[in-house]
Amino acid sequence: MSKIRIGIVGYGNIGKGSVKAVNATPDMELKAIFTRRDPSSLDFDTTNVAVLPVSAAESMVDDIDVLVLCGGSATDIPEQGPYFASMFNTVDSYDKHTDIPDYMASIDAVALKTTAVIASGWDPGLFSIMRTLFESTLPDGENYTFWGHGVSQGHSDAIRHVKGVKHAVQYTVPINSAIEVIRSGERPKLEARQKHRRECFVVAEPGADKDKITENITKMPYYFINNETTVNYIEYEELLEHHSKMPHGGFVLRSGNTGENNQLMEFSLKLDSNPEFTASVLIAYARAAFRMSKEGLFGAKTVFDIPLYYLSEKDRSTLIKDLL
Amino acid sequence: MSKIRIGIVGYGNIGKGSVKAVNATPDMELKAIFTRRDPSSLDFDTTNVAVLPVSAAESMVDDIDVLVLCGGSATDIPEQGPYFASMFNTVDSYDKHTDIPDYMASIDAVALKTTAVIASGWDPGLFSIMRTLFESTLPDGENYTFWGHGVSQGHSDAIRHVKGVKHAVQYTVPINSAIEVIRSGERPKLEARQKHRRECFVVAEPGADKDKITENITKMPYYFINNETTVNYIEYEELLEHHSKMPHGGFVLRSGNTGENNQLMEFSLKLDSNPEFTASVLIAYARAAFRMSKEGLFGAKTVFDIPLYYLSEKDRSTLIKDLL
Repeated sequence: MSKIRIGIVGYGNIGKGSVKAVNATPDMELKAIFTRRDPSSLDFDTTNVAVLPVSAAESMVDDIDVLVLCGGSATDIPEQGPYFASMFNTVDSYDKHTDIPDYMASIDAVALKTTAVIASGWDPGLFSIMRTLFESTLPDGENYTFWGHGVSQGHSDAIRHVKGVKHAVQYTVPINSAIEVIRSGERPKLEARQKHRRECFVVAEPGADKDKITENITKMPYYFINNETTVNYIEYEELLEHHSKMPHGGFVLRSGNTGENNQLMEFSLKLDSNPEFTASVLIAYARAAFRMSKEGLFGAKTVFDIPLYYLSEKDRSTLIKDLL
Repeated sequence: MSKIRIGIVGYGNIGKGSVKAVNATPDMELKAIFTRRDPSSLDFDTTNVAVLPVSAAESMVDDIDVLVLCGGSATDIPEQGPYFASMFNTVDSYDKHTDIPDYMASIDAVALKTTAVIASGWDPGLFSIMRTLFESTLPDGENYTFWGHGVSQGHSDAIRHVKGVKHAVQYTVPINSAIEVIRSGERPKLEARQKHRRECFVVAEPGADKDKITENITKMPYYFINNETTVNYIEYEELLEHHSKMPHGGFVLRSGNTGENNQLMEFSLKLDSNPEFTASVLIAYARAAFRMSKEGLFGAKTVFDIPLYYLSEKDRSTLIKDLL
């Protein structure tokens, strides 16, 4: 049986995770990595995998079954998504929740003979599946999503833009007492500061005013003002040694009722590597994109649209026998 | 917008739960309950709902959109499933895991113009979804399913057949230390007795030999021999007061890796009423059966075959906006 031929666009953390995920999957093979960097600068064994500039992808339409778009959601994916979905089956982890409908429309307009899975990964992605499954199967209830304990790239970046900051890592920390209240069968109304707190580890520039940095972080609109935030100053060596991993995770809970009876649903992830897990999910949805395209199910697809059996390496009857 | 018209076959615990679940759902209405008992013996307000013998269902083919089959998996569903699926869209919670492929074939043979969702509920059902989703998105790993803390109807029945037993309730208890080992990132090989223990509450016949009963229970093949089992003797009043509810739940976990990194996925249910929650899930899948039949997607369907947006009262674009 021929393998599903995968191309990867973008060789950052998710791109590197996607290489690992494809190699861990017997029914797929990696054909090419497309990068905006100088291809020769990548430390990658090119014996069986082409490493090429992004512009070379078009020429490989016949050699690749699914392109995995591993760029950022801020500027890369909104541009690359529609461009590539017009030619290739694609999968991406576009994560700007409020912009997903517009992004989806831009894909649907061009994915006329291709299948494009959008906004996959774990949130959006697996967490979205849980929110919908929970709400649908237990209508009288309330959904809660908590993130962490883990590194938020967006918040870490925001700190790095503060004057006097050289390096920074921000951990989002779920507040366990709030989770325990939900687990007890309550349906609390929770403000942002009751759900998460933020822990920042900052390497300051020499001679920088740390009190001023702390104030600028903790009062930063949108990112920090609504949460209890602690700022710790450390040396660069300590940051490298203790804060260079990218753990993450979180919880989706639903506290609800059927009549007088409490019913609790809970899903959680505890990830030592956020980008590698995101990539691992993307690769499962790449399989779905390939199979759906073979059946003529074209256009933009979300995790809500895709029957689960498309995700599995096993065929449907084996799944029903083994896992139902 | 006209409501989805529901009929219920069987007025036991799941049937009663289904009545509650339909009433909690604005887009559905209950049209009829079909029972093998004398319909006039049911304590049910028949102002808007017909209560009829099972044999009367055929005559209501045009009045019902989906039949919810609430009988037992031992004898009711294998007979009623194919019979009703030839005429109605149906949903059931058939739970004899090893017999599902045969049961499915018997439904597929007759559901030529109907949609029949089989083996729905929480296990099979939501737990099956998790097992497949977990395995597909994290291929290098191991799935674990634990049940409880909760009442097992099958094990309680088995005890009731022991000589000298008047009443009995059996709780399946997951062994937390095993769950903690998995949560720590290990992938242990677990025997039955390392995963669950069994707690039995027995009301003995007057003068019965309790030591003999205990031995007959704890050494019972299949049901008890492979687990640590404790047998407690109580009075009938205590059984009624403390053991007449039907709580249940459980855990699906996957401990796995991407390269060197540990990744943990976990889903859990804590249910005060097992039959009411099962019914609530069935009703969501009844909505899916109705919608899929409208689109001509006929035949036997499992939870692996059904895109999630079919389950929700919300339309697809609202789901994408609100929950993705």
